[in-house]
Amino acid sequence: MYEGALQDLIEELGRLPGIGPKSAQRIAFHLLAADPADVDRLATAMQEVTRTVKFCEVCGNVSSQQICRICSDDRRDSSIICVVEEPKDVVAIERTREYRGRYHVLGGAISPIDGVGPDDLRIASLLSRLSDSSVAEVIIATDPNLEGEATAAYLARMLSPLGVKVTRLASGLPVGGDLEYADEVTLGRAFVGRRAL
Amino acid sequence: MYEGALQDLIEELGRLPGIGPKSAQRIAFHLLAADPADVDRLATAMQEVTRTVKFCEVCGNVSSQQICRICSDDRRDSSIICVVEEPKDVVAIERTREYRGRYHVLGGAISPIDGVGPDDLRIASLLSRLSDSSVAEVIIATDPNLEGEATAAYLARMLSPLGVKVTRLASGLPVGGDLEYADEVTLGRAFVGRRAL
Repeated sequence: MYEGALQDLIEELGRLPGIGPKSAQRIAFHLLAADPADVDRLATAMQEVTRTVKFCEVCGNVSSQQICRICSDDRRDSSIICVVEEPKDVVAIERTREYRGRYHVLGGAISPIDGVGPDDLRIASLLSRLSDSSVAEVIIATDPNLEGEATAAYLARMLSPLGVKVTRLASGLPVGGDLEYADEVTLGRAFVGRRAL
Repeated sequence: MYEGALQDLIEELGRLPGIGPKSAQRIAFHLLAADPADVDRLATAMQEVTRTVKFCEVCGNVSSQQICRICSDDRRDSSIICVVEEPKDVVAIERTREYRGRYHVLGGAISPIDGVGPDDLRIASLLSRLSDSSVAEVIIATDPNLEGEATAAYLARMLSPLGVKVTRLASGLPVGGDLEYADEVTLGRAFVGRRAL
């Protein structure tokens, strides 16, 4: 146990995700030895995020404006919407440079165990985006795990009556991976999804 | 890449020790979703540490006062000084409840590779604490690694002419450990330091 402010800081840091007591102590001593101007910059950056970061009114992604950069970019194809769980998924897909359509961020996946149902996700706003029939395809890019698959199945059922093409990202062997070490479900999916060469 | 404030925060967090890009992103989204009052509390705790935490004028440990809690506690035995590298070592030793003497924090260990020499450590203030001959024993509790051992050897050489008893923490097998998995240096030390039962 340390005295006063140092102990307070260690306890506050320990509440962050992925920061255990040892890491909290290490970061606290780092900050103690750091230039006060650097510490102020970090503290301000934290407070700025809660004050200035908004969620895009169209797609639900994080944004510094009411409408995010991607939704307000006319060069992007507005006839395709890629549905993801979280803003970090948008960043991951953007990094591939393979996709030039729009996004829709659900804000999570259906997970009864965590008490997250369809009504807790931004599904109503997705349906209203599809109502003007300018959208030709919805790509469901939720995570390939239990919750993501359940969400994908639910969305597919909701969207099929609307006449829009609904697709799902391919499952299979990761590039650079090793067939021997692939789990049986992934390998099974790779067989099902095999393509003609 | 995110927009504005969120990207700034991810970059600032990524400068902390042990926080990689993925952890920085995870913490940033956690803070984004957190109660602004909690974020303010963390930001304030960081700034408070750089402003209010001092180093004890006697032992060099972190302290909220000019003289730390341990140095100003009359019930502690002032005839024994335990020399450690860092304030976190004081906390580790206090947790054992085996030691009731005073401390001296060097602020590191001699490490030529990192450019840390004896003059960069609080050795002069240790010598001045020993000048009034009320100290009977100095326990050297630097880390049992290369730098810590070099520092211990240097201190032993400096302190021997002063007529004070200089001791070193025992090296040997960790309690609850497994003899089979002990490295040969530790096992060798355990033989050298064996005790009669």
